[in-house]
Amino acid sequence: MIFVNRVKFLAVLVLIFLLMPANGFGETGENLLNLMPMPEKIDIRAGKCLVTETFTGAIEAVPGADTLRASRAVRRMLNRLAGRCGLFFTNNEIPIKNQPMDTALWVSFHRNGEIKLHEDESYQLTVIPGRIELKAITDIGVIRGLETLLQLLMADDSGYFFPAVVIDDRPRFPWRGLLIDSCRHFMPVEVIKRTLDGMAAVKMNVLHWHLSEDQGFRVECKTFPKLHRLGSDGFYYTHEQVREVIAYAADRGIRVMPEFDIPGHSTSWLVGYPGLASLPGPYHIEREYGVKDPTFNPSIKATYKFFKKFFKEMAGLFPDDYFHIGGDENNGIQWDANVKIQAFKKKHHFPDNHALQAYFNREILDILSKYQKKMVGWDEILQPGFPGTIVIQSWRGKEALRDAAKKGYNSILSNGYYIDLVQPTDFHYLNDPIPADSDLTAGERERILGGEATMWTELISPETIDSRIWPRTAAIAERLWSPVYVKDVKDMYRRLDIISLQLEELGLTHLKNQEMMLRRLVNGRDTQALKVLVDVIEPLKIYQRHQCAAYTFFSPLTRVVDAALPDAKQARIFRQQVEDFVTGNVNQEAADVLIRDLRLWKSNHQKLKPVIVGAPVLKEIETLSEDLSRVAGIGLEAVEFILAGKKVSLQWLDESKKVLKAAREPRGHAELMIVTAVERLVDACL
Amino acid sequence: MIFVNRVKFLAVLVLIFLLMPANGFGETGENLLNLMPMPEKIDIRAGKCLVTETFTGAIEAVPGADTLRASRAVRRMLNRLAGRCGLFFTNNEIPIKNQPMDTALWVSFHRNGEIKLHEDESYQLTVIPGRIELKAITDIGVIRGLETLLQLLMADDSGYFFPAVVIDDRPRFPWRGLLIDSCRHFMPVEVIKRTLDGMAAVKMNVLHWHLSEDQGFRVECKTFPKLHRLGSDGFYYTHEQVREVIAYAADRGIRVMPEFDIPGHSTSWLVGYPGLASLPGPYHIEREYGVKDPTFNPSIKATYKFFKKFFKEMAGLFPDDYFHIGGDENNGIQWDANVKIQAFKKKHHFPDNHALQAYFNREILDILSKYQKKMVGWDEILQPGFPGTIVIQSWRGKEALRDAAKKGYNSILSNGYYIDLVQPTDFHYLNDPIPADSDLTAGERERILGGEATMWTELISPETIDSRIWPRTAAIAERLWSPVYVKDVKDMYRRLDIISLQLEELGLTHLKNQEMMLRRLVNGRDTQALKVLVDVIEPLKIYQRHQCAAYTFFSPLTRVVDAALPDAKQARIFRQQVEDFVTGNVNQEAADVLIRDLRLWKSNHQKLKPVIVGAPVLKEIETLSEDLSRVAGIGLEAVEFILAGKKVSLQWLDESKKVLKAAREPRGHAELMIVTAVERLVDACL
Repeated sequence: MIFVNRVKFLAVLVLIFLLMPANGFGETGENLLNLMPMPEKIDIRAGKCLVTETFTGAIEAVPGADTLRASRAVRRMLNRLAGRCGLFFTNNEIPIKNQPMDTALWVSFHRNGEIKLHEDESYQLTVIPGRIELKAITDIGVIRGLETLLQLLMADDSGYFFPAVVIDDRPRFPWRGLLIDSCRHFMPVEVIKRTLDGMAAVKMNVLHWHLSEDQGFRVECKTFPKLHRLGSDGFYYTHEQVREVIAYAADRGIRVMPEFDIPGHSTSWLVGYPGLASLPGPYHIEREYGVKDPTFNPSIKATYKFFKKFFKEMAGLFPDDYFHIGGDENNGIQWDANVKIQAFKKKHHFPDNHALQAYFNREILDILSKYQKKMVGWDEILQPGFPGTIVIQSWRGKEALRDAAKKGYNSILSNGYYIDLVQPTDFHYLNDPIPADSDLTAGERERILGGEATMWTELISPETIDSRIWPRTAAIAERLWSPVYVKDVKDMYRRLDIISLQLEELGLTHLKNQEMMLRRLVNGRDTQALKVLVDVIEPLKIYQRHQCAAYTFFSPLTRVVDAALPDAKQARIFRQQVEDFVTGNVNQEAADVLIRDLRLWKSNHQKLKPVIVGAPVLKEIETLSEDLSRVAGIGLEAVEFILAGKKVSLQWLDESKKVLKAAREPRGHAELMIVTAVERLVDACL
Repeated sequence: MIFVNRVKFLAVLVLIFLLMPANGFGETGENLLNLMPMPEKIDIRAGKCLVTETFTGAIEAVPGADTLRASRAVRRMLNRLAGRCGLFFTNNEIPIKNQPMDTALWVSFHRNGEIKLHEDESYQLTVIPGRIELKAITDIGVIRGLETLLQLLMADDSGYFFPAVVIDDRPRFPWRGLLIDSCRHFMPVEVIKRTLDGMAAVKMNVLHWHLSEDQGFRVECKTFPKLHRLGSDGFYYTHEQVREVIAYAADRGIRVMPEFDIPGHSTSWLVGYPGLASLPGPYHIEREYGVKDPTFNPSIKATYKFFKKFFKEMAGLFPDDYFHIGGDENNGIQWDANVKIQAFKKKHHFPDNHALQAYFNREILDILSKYQKKMVGWDEILQPGFPGTIVIQSWRGKEALRDAAKKGYNSILSNGYYIDLVQPTDFHYLNDPIPADSDLTAGERERILGGEATMWTELISPETIDSRIWPRTAAIAERLWSPVYVKDVKDMYRRLDIISLQLEELGLTHLKNQEMMLRRLVNGRDTQALKVLVDVIEPLKIYQRHQCAAYTFFSPLTRVVDAALPDAKQARIFRQQVEDFVTGNVNQEAADVLIRDLRLWKSNHQKLKPVIVGAPVLKEIETLSEDLSRVAGIGLEAVEFILAGKKVSLQWLDESKKVLKAAREPRGHAELMIVTAVERLVDACL
């Protein structure tokens, strides 16, 4: 019976493939699917595989392979599928056999993937009516393919279905990471877990876990318990929790690389162990942000004795081959102020603190090597004489990456992926570790391992972290997975909206927490007017927010600026529509779209005013709200002038420009994102 | 300086108290505050204590008292305060001294509270301009008072403030619990933690943790590891996680009482230890719900040997004085089918299975007593000869509670607090363990310890559990804390809306997950029309939903019925407005309110129809949506007739009644909650 079905299946498969055109896009070249990241190769076929209550999954196991991870992945996939479709699947067993089976979804792989750099993540996915085959070398490939499958799900009046496709997929870069800073603000285990789920959904494979900082030491240390007891305010991960996170990540084919940032950024370590500092203590957990002075003393044996024991424990806890030692932003002030360190420098003929730090790094490298760990660090660790096994993570830029590759070092790119700086998605998306026009040799290219988005958390709480990571990081994930030529910004944004909604099913709060925060802000009143404003503002970018107030560990991250989202969609769409309008699309229909938005904004301040009266926390954005209405008023006039082809008065122009200039001023640490567009409209009146 | 300020403070205090009227309500008797539960005594004074950036907190410690718990509570309170007000407090230290201090908030207590039944939870809270004093016997009282303080927060154009009040408060019942069933669906640690935060916010003090069931054994057991390894699908709490939860609860003055349900409800135990069952295995984790046959064998020594070791481990893990052994719903089928058990019964002259279970319970009681644990069980355990130390939890009713008290047993009420049955808030709210007209003696009253809301999770996932617990459980919390005479349903609902919003700041998802679920349901389309429908439907009540489909562990809990909330607010308000309208308030203004709603509903199906086309999961509520529009249409006609005083035709009446009758039919396991109101309108046309 199974055999007959198998033959039938093959016959149908051959027939379908013969009849269908083989390309992934519609006739006009538009992308018909909602995949992110886009697979390497994709052929859309005719037909579909319906999802009904009889849908089942099965795994074909090669003898000797452990099927537990694949089973759990299929189980999760079926749960999400049932969740989206609302279907009561009648058969919930996931049989495991060593031959193909006659189930709707049939998954097979050759061996268990290792949670290691360069592990095979490829997969082939074939959907025909009634049958889905997912084949991979490793079960990690299976996990990647299941996410693609879920993204393929569509619906029409006949029900839910997977469109017939043949996908052949593998990643462009082997290192596709996300850094989570659990130090500036502690992120509970559930935040890390749901982030891992989001990462898996977009095929990222490295969690770079930033675990020590001036503001906190976040891992239980059994060898030196004062580290977490005195350096964490009680907010740290126990060994068991760390293992839980690592297992959870491994279950999704994700490596967990710890970062212990030394010798600077280390105040919290020195609270319990002040004798290892470069100047006498006592030290207290740092509450402020920025580059601080406390630094380990590189000139005393005690320091290395300490790290030997410390890394021994941590090497046992974290199985990943790579250990990140930070190594960034040591300002050298403590070293300069310590006479003995200066004498040590002289004795060893170190010309400067960089050379001294290189000495420190070499000692740490020796320790890590002893525990079979490879060293990773920020640009600063790239100094002559280090072995090619180290990995440079570049916050400085693509040039540094290029240099490292040319010098024979492996490297990963983070410059351009600093998602804490609230820059727009397309900025990150178009930032390629190896641009299409790169002159690097094949060997040099191979040393550029990929990249990492960095979620630093000075201005981020567990409540807001998801909205700072997602959905923008999905675009970075695509940059690191998909072929270099996949870079249609418009289509990226189209797919991003869909992926963003899907990420919610993993428990991610990037959308739902905004609504909650708005409810808290309005203090029982209606949120609608505030939402209209928040939809067109963004938090200040880069490091500007720190210039507005002295943010500390205790500062509230619950204000309007925190509810505002990066890359505000409404504003972005409006800017594009204005651009289209002024560059040749001047017609009533296009104008009507603009007018609808502008009217909403113009009338909004009157609605928001009474809300502000009852919610003093909103006072700080009162004039921003006023400006939105004013700017929208100008925009409406401009659209009218343009449509009428009427010449505008210099006085109107002058006054408008003044209002627009004032409206550019940040308020409440946030800025209006439609001002430039209205300026475009005003300029178009000339 | 401190002394001078202290004198000044006292002088101001005396002056204010002399000048002000002493009552907690406005001149027209309305409740001016938004507290839940309402305190025992409350006097509202004139004036307010402003909250500004200089707001600070301090703790006065009696020598020898541990201030860590109080400090953490004040820290959390200040964080939430800063979060609501958006204020950057300039001084974030919380000084601890052994004398009163000149800070805005001054907290003092006499001793550390024990996490035990009958511990003192009273507190006195005094707010005057510039100063808040919170005094308690124990630090648990401090924790209760801090929640009251946060609920007092108000705002006007001058900023945020606490109104001047004098509150003297203590609970009516010492046992105010919530049962969480972590078995039917596993609830991750973060769900338990945020539930504990919600409980603390409304001053509940017992987490009754249901940890074993046919569907899962949820605690790591080191003595018998096959319990969690084979009985949990991998979903269990480790010892460390259990300790983490207990510590988290203790930090909020909440006891954690474990329940291991025996001898029935025990399939998952028997998967790993089939030899202890009353019939030969093998056993598999149960996927379906309801009363199942597998039951421990009470006639063999191995069973008690097993429980001796088992409870030894668990008694070490769970510090609470009370252990719940379930004891409910043993159907006796396995016992009847086992010849040896029948022989055992005969030999011991047990007339029936109840007597046999009493024997079993007595053995378990002996074991628990050995580990200094008191036994708690459902009604079924109340059998002659048990000592007065046991506690009866009544799912059967207040009569059972009364009987137990009269027989000298302690008891707690759960009948009427089954929040999984989706009944309206006021039903639970008015359910009093000791009704005002009770004839119990003072001694008998004391034996009624309080009550517990029960969150059984057959139809609940981590995604929906919060909306099934909150905000309704806050009303139950008030029933168990506040004086018996606090039972104004209208005012309860008014305050509940406010408290519900505040609960969101603890990470509870009862509001925000609905929006997320609607987004998933509409598959990328606008949620608005679906929201209008969902706002006036409720999931089927009591056990009706199980009659609509064979729910199992794998069934999706993501459909419209799961997004619908218990006690649908829009529908409830509409029903009340209709009631007011037809009972004497027939005027245009009252009619307009009804007409606005009815028009919205009438036009809604046209808007929802295209959404349903693209989202097959919505098909099941298509006719429900149609009926909403139809019913609203009839309502509009009826209002018109009533306003016009026009006589209606029998034909119209007949046809309307038919439509209304059909509209009462559940669809998608949910029901329309405005049909009875429209029936009222139609009846009023006569």
